[in-house]
Order: sequence, then structure tokens, then C-alpha cells
Amino acid sequence: MIEKLIRKIRETKAPIVVGLDPMLSYVPEYITKAAYEQYGETLEGAAEAIWQFNKAIVDATYDLIPAVKPQIAMYEQFGVEGVRAYQKTVEYCHEKDLVVIGDVKRGDIGSTSAAYATGHLGKVQVGSKCYSCFDEDFATVNPYLGSDGVQPFIDVCKEEKKGIFVLVKTSNPSSGEFQDRLIDGRPLYEHVGEKVAQWGEQLMGENYSYIGAVVGATYPEEGKVLRRLMPKSFILVPGYGAQGGKGADLVHYFDEDGLGAIVNSSRGIIAAYRQEAYAKYGEEHFAEASRAAVEAMIADIDGALQAAN
Amino acid sequence: MIEKLIRKIRETKAPIVVGLDPMLSYVPEYITKAAYEQYGETLEGAAEAIWQFNKAIVDATYDLIPAVKPQIAMYEQFGVEGVRAYQKTVEYCHEKDLVVIGDVKRGDIGSTSAAYATGHLGKVQVGSKCYSCFDEDFATVNPYLGSDGVQPFIDVCKEEKKGIFVLVKTSNPSSGEFQDRLIDGRPLYEHVGEKVAQWGEQLMGENYSYIGAVVGATYPEEGKVLRRLMPKSFILVPGYGAQGGKGADLVHYFDEDGLGAIVNSSRGIIAAYRQEAYAKYGEEHFAEASRAAVEAMIADIDGALQAAN
Repeated sequence: MIEKLIRKIRETKAPIVVGLDPMLSYVPEYITKAAYEQYGETLEGAAEAIWQFNKAIVDATYDLIPAVKPQIAMYEQFGVEGVRAYQKTVEYCHEKDLVVIGDVKRGDIGSTSAAYATGHLGKVQVGSKCYSCFDEDFATVNPYLGSDGVQPFIDVCKEEKKGIFVLVKTSNPSSGEFQDRLIDGRPLYEHVGEKVAQWGEQLMGENYSYIGAVVGATYPEEGKVLRRLMPKSFILVPGYGAQGGKGADLVHYFDEDGLGAIVNSSRGIIAAYRQEAYAKYGEEHFAEASRAAVEAMIADIDGALQAAN
Repeated sequence: MIEKLIRKIRETKAPIVVGLDPMLSYVPEYITKAAYEQYGETLEGAAEAIWQFNKAIVDATYDLIPAVKPQIAMYEQFGVEGVRAYQKTVEYCHEKDLVVIGDVKRGDIGSTSAAYATGHLGKVQVGSKCYSCFDEDFATVNPYLGSDGVQPFIDVCKEEKKGIFVLVKTSNPSSGEFQDRLIDGRPLYEHVGEKVAQWGEQLMGENYSYIGAVVGATYPEEGKVLRRLMPKSFILVPGYGAQGGKGADLVHYFDEDGLGAIVNSSRGIIAAYRQEAYAKYGEEHFAEASRAAVEAMIADIDGALQAAN
């Protein structure tokens, strides 16, 4: 799957990923209205609204981008119906041949991590039958529990030729509270990054490992160090746009070939129509605003990479 | 909710929690057979089987115990249908007046953590309506992202009078890989424990905070230190039984009043009928075997606490 991701990045010339993190407040009123007319102001209605919202954005952007990253929390908040909308979104993105990174940040111990890995990346056995459930191509994983929390994901990735991105240095303001604390003179995130590089040796693609890392766009200096520490790991970079990261900050997350990183924007793309820059599209044409925001993001990152080389 | 937990621990004299972590391999064949006859060897069939399994165990044990801890990974592996069985299990346990600790180990940043908190502990707004979705009483939370990943859970807990247990020192063999690393001369888990104590000050019950900690039964020395570091935090203790923890190891997780900790056993209770000690019950009477295992666990812990005082 890392090879597919790289191929699609090359084809689209866009090392970006659109974060499908639909808040109900982002969804244009005409969509929620239609959904509530059909299902009432229910969890089903909310799920229908976010699904229709996602579908329009995917339809308007899929030819420009290699990958999407649905954030499962935004679906889980609507319970079982929301989780169903998540699954539907993943399926639809597969139909559009997009690489799907499930932002699930799971992580547990032994057989429990194995169950998460099975549900999200693998196949579950029911009697004589086998089923892929959520079937993302990649999942994000939390490293706090150590190797035996991560290994079950790697084992499933080996079987399925899928991958994970392990949280190393997250984009939020208080990520440093534990991640920056010094251990033997170096911050915890470097120790985690080294482990990611080690874990990745088990499952190499041609040039990059199937085991990648999450490093926030909001910490470019840390990104520079981590790029060197994990030379074979793809870096998933959240925090671009709405959280403050800019293309020029991100050049050191990439290798010289323009690969090695994939930058996520969520709100900045899916709620673009609410920004002044894209207000002219209006609520009716929110998906076209998202397309324009994708084009601007690609140009920003491409420009930064060109300028750096 | 911490008050209800304490009241129920006092009533049952059992500071224990039954981990509802159903693997299909634990479910007696007559249950899976009936489920597959009704739904086929499908995800629905698997979900029905684990639900029937759970229900029988809850029916056989609810009067002995204060709380259950369903592990959502075991349900999520069966996709949307599995998640529905999780929800049904939570609801049923509420009907039986059990405190429900959702072992979800969620944790993300800002609005994303808020969405998880909303879905699991809070209420989500849909138009003019409000819904509780998964509606657990407590949830487990991963601290790797720092305060702004945890605070949204605390905010929802304040509104709902619910609680969380933050992962501090987990029970698995490689938990030390990051958690034991020394920062300013003290292991990371102590720093996390101190934060838990601080976070907990925001939301105190009568004697204990609504913000608790997870400390594995497999690390009793660490548990002793953490008990002192977090004097007002309830400790959720996984790793008893199948993972190796024994009652005698656990006395220091408790305060002198016999409160302050709640010990979880999953496999040791729900799959008791597969142990030699309970083999006489046979598959048909698996739930009675679970009841006997609960009684033995209560006696073990009570004996250890008596001996220590």
C-alpha cells in the first residue's frame, strides 16, 4: 500500500491528504435539511448529512489527490450510525481509488491491539467465512504502550500489505508535555521515532517502509530531526492550514525526491467555503470551494519544495 | 459517577470489575451455532453470538459486582455490527445498574478528543435534539498527546458527572519501553501520574476524583509508588488473573479503607469454564463458571486486604 501511496503522489504531484473530519457545523444547511427531512433530527439523520457532505467533497477532489484521512472520532460521536457513515466513506473512497488513512489512533496491548488491527486493516474470521470490516489502507497508532501494542498492527500489515503511521510528535500545543521531555538527553519523541524506524525495518517497500510516523506541521524543527532519524519512514503531517502550518515550514519533512511526507489538511479543505478566500463559492458550491482549496494547498507545497531544491 | 462506583463497591464488598472482552473463541459452540443459524456466518451472526455470551455472563454475575469493563476493540473487530453489540452490552449493563467503564483508550487533540468524549460520555446535538450515544460511565484515555488531549474529556465529565481512567502504567510486558524511561530521574509514568493527580483536582467527588488512572496489576512496586503520587485518584487495575497479577500483589493499590482501586479480570472470568478449576461446569454452564470465578476473585482480593490490615 505504501507503493500505491507513492505512485498516486507521483501521478497527482500532490503529497497531500484531505482530512474528512466532518463536524455537523461544517455541513451546509441544505444538506442537513434534506437529511433531517428523510430521517428526522436523529443520529441517522446526522450520519446521512455527514456522508452526503463527504461524498460531495470526494467527488470534487478525488482526481487531484492521492489519499484521504477520515478521523473516526467525528463519526463515533454519532454512535453506531456515525460509525456506519465512516465505513461508507471509506468504501466510497476506495471506489474512487483513493488511499484511505484511517485516523483512529488506536493502541492497546497484545490481543486487544490485534483485534483493532483486524477490524481496521485485516480480516476477521466468522465460522468458515472471512470479512474485511473497516478496511482502511493505513491506520494511525498510539505508541504509549510500547512494542507489544504496535507489533500486532505490523503483523496484520505484513499479511495485508497495508501500513500504519505511529504518533511521534503530534501537532497540538501541549504535545510537548510528555513528548518533549528529555530522556538520556533527547526528547521522548526522538526515542519513539527511533523505534518507528526499527519497527519499519520489518516491513519495507521499495524505498520506504510500510510503517510511518505522525509528525505535526506545527513543529518544523522537530520534523527536520525526525526526518533524519527515520530515513525510510513516510511522515504523515497534520496541522497544516487551520492549525497554522505552512508549505514553507514543511520542506524538511520531505526527501530530495519530493517524497517521504504527506501533508494533511482537514478543516482548511472541507470547510473552505466558510473562509473569506473562498466565500464567493457560497454554501451551495462548498465542494468547489474545497477543490479550489486543494489546488491552493498543492501549489503552496509544490512552490515550497521547488524553492527548496 | 465515582460516588456510584464507591457505593457499589461498598455494597458488593467487591472492588472488582468484570472485563467483557468477548473473543469468538471463548463463546460456547451452542451459542455461536444458534447465532449463525439465525444470521448466517456473518458479522451480524458474530455480533449476536458475543452479545448472547455477554448477556449470560452479566445475568450470572451482576449482583456480585459493581462494574463491568467492555473492551471496545473486541467489538470493533466485527465492524459496525460489532460496535452495535458493544452499545447493546453497555445498555444492558445499565439496566442491571452496573457501572460501565468503556475501555476505549481514546485520545486525540482538541476538537477530536471532544468528539470522542461526546460520543462515549456526553451528548451530541443533532438539530434541536440531543442524544447520548455509547453512554459509558467512565472511559479509558491515552495521555500521549498531553493536557489538551485529556481536557476535552474532563470538560464532558464535569457536565455529565462521569469519569475517566488515564493510562499511566499499563500491564503489558513492553509497557516499560517508553513508560519506564527516566525523565529528571523519575520514570515517565510518574510524571503522567502527577498530571493525573493535577487533572483530578478539577473534578473531585467526596473523597476521590472523577479522574482516575490505569496501573497494571503486573507492576506492584510501581503501583505502590503511584498510589502515593495520586492520593485522590481511583486506580483501575488490569492484568489480574490471566496476565499474572494476584490479590496479594495488589494491596498497595488500595487505601486503608479498602477503596481507591478496582481490579479488572477479563479472560479469567468470562472464559473461566475453559480453565481446569472450573471445567466441571462444562460449556453449557459457562456463565455459572464465571460466577464461581468472580466469587473466587473477590475472596482472593478480600483475603489479601484483610491480611494486610
